[in-house]
Amino acid sequence: MDPTDREAACFEAGIKFGTLYHQFAGTPVSPDSAASLERAMAEAIENQPFCESVTVDVLEDVLADELAEQSADYAELTGRFVEVEMRIEYEGTTVRTRMAMDGDYPLMEVVDVAD
Amino acid sequence: MDPTDREAACFEAGIKFGTLYHQFAGTPVSPDSAASLERAMAEAIENQPFCESVTVDVLEDVLADELAEQSADYAELTGRFVEVEMRIEYEGTTVRTRMAMDGDYPLMEVVDVAD
Amino acid sequence: MDPTDREAACFEAGIKFGTLYHQFAGTPVSPDSAASLERAMAEAIENQPFCESVTVDVLEDVLADELAEQSADYAELTGRFVEVEMRIEYEGTTVRTRMAMDGDYPLMEVVDVAD
Amino acid sequence: MDPTDREAACFEAGIKFGTLYHQFAGTPVSPDSAASLERAMAEAIENQPFCESVTVDVLEDVLADELAEQSADYAELTGRFVEVEMRIEYEGTTVRTRMAMDGDYPLMEVVDVAD
Repeated sequence: MDPTDREAACFEAGIKFGTLYHQFAGTPVSPDSAASLERAMAEAIENQPFCESVTVDVLEDVLADELAEQSADYAELTGRFVEVEMRIEYEGTTVRTRMAMDGDYPLMEVVDVAD
Repeated sequence: MDPTDREAACFEAGIKFGTLYHQFAGTPVSPDSAASLERAMAEAIENQPFCESVTVDVLEDVLADELAEQSADYAELTGRFVEVEMRIEYEGTTVRTRMAMDGDYPLMEVVDVAD
Repeated sequence: MDPTDREAACFEAGIKFGTLYHQFAGTPVSPDSAASLERAMAEAIENQPFCESVTVDVLEDVLADELAEQSADYAELTGRFVEVEMRIEYEGTTVRTRMAMDGDYPLMEVVDVAD
Repeated sequence: MDPTDREAACFEAGIKFGTLYHQFAGTPVSPDSAASLERAMAEAIENQPFCESVTVDVLEDVLADELAEQSADYAELTGRFVEVEMRIEYEGTTVRTRMAMDGDYPLMEVVDVAD
């Protein structure tokens, strides 16, 4: 059957997460450039339909630890280095989502769905 | 409240679509390379959790028309040149989705949700 | 034979341009998010080796014209919407490069090579 | 001064490497999907100007070792998992390049420049 508004809202929320991750994964990032990347990622995704709010937090401690163990002084952005929260508003439904590491996997999940 | 299985299934479906689009948007594509790109896109996304089936169709006629009007003999992949269908299976729920142009916008939509 | 320092410097300059373009092509962009994207693109690429300076200019007039003709209120970043200048320093050689539209093609070119 | 043909050829070679890496970094990849990704990457980049030949080798042993140590059964494509060779032909100059790991860094380098 057709999706309900809540289901369509969750679909929209998923699109935003896949977009954010795969548009920016691989971006060269360092402690110095973390702040500009956080802001650009958030504002880029907020352009998409139904996307009310995006917060991106590059985990500078985790990034610094990684850089201390490698030869280059920057890394490629991947899920270990970032936490994200988003709020989607679709036809009266609000979906709150987040991404954070679950063990070794960057888990994207729906935190709350509310009419 | 927490998402239902159907809502979580739709969230997962959205993730796959955002991933597919933003991982591969911008890829140089021509009629000669369309088939290999279709296959790689489908197989890449099928790696993701709960993603049972992906079909990617590069619209070679639309692509050829675009190439006839421009100087380069390849284009960057974007929504005008591709149609996609996916099937997600999550905890007993099947979500069918597709992407196709809706006027000038590449619309990703849930076609069917079934327990 | 092995590349000269000047040739290696030009190779490095090319890497940065390919990186910048294909990392960020497809990013949702609007007049409101243009400034944060410009800064993030520049700072991301400046992380790479031998890359001394990057300037990214999202062409807000061109972007606004495009948005006026389409249904969505954002676009995907592509070469029409951006001009870039970079300076690479490699083993005493300075390479200046730029990207701008050449007719309908976003041409990346070496402007100057100096020992 | 303006670049020589050899320098311009090296610049073109660099563009192709940056494109290949940052277009496809982050792509979900598994041993089952490695072959289709190799082919799509090669054919996509061969579309670009002056790019005569691209060979992409996903290192399935390295990939399998990584998958054995993590929870997910796929990885995101990054430099550890891939070796690349390219041949660029520009105005009579042939540039051969490759990418392979140099310690922990995916090094792109010019192997040979020949008139």
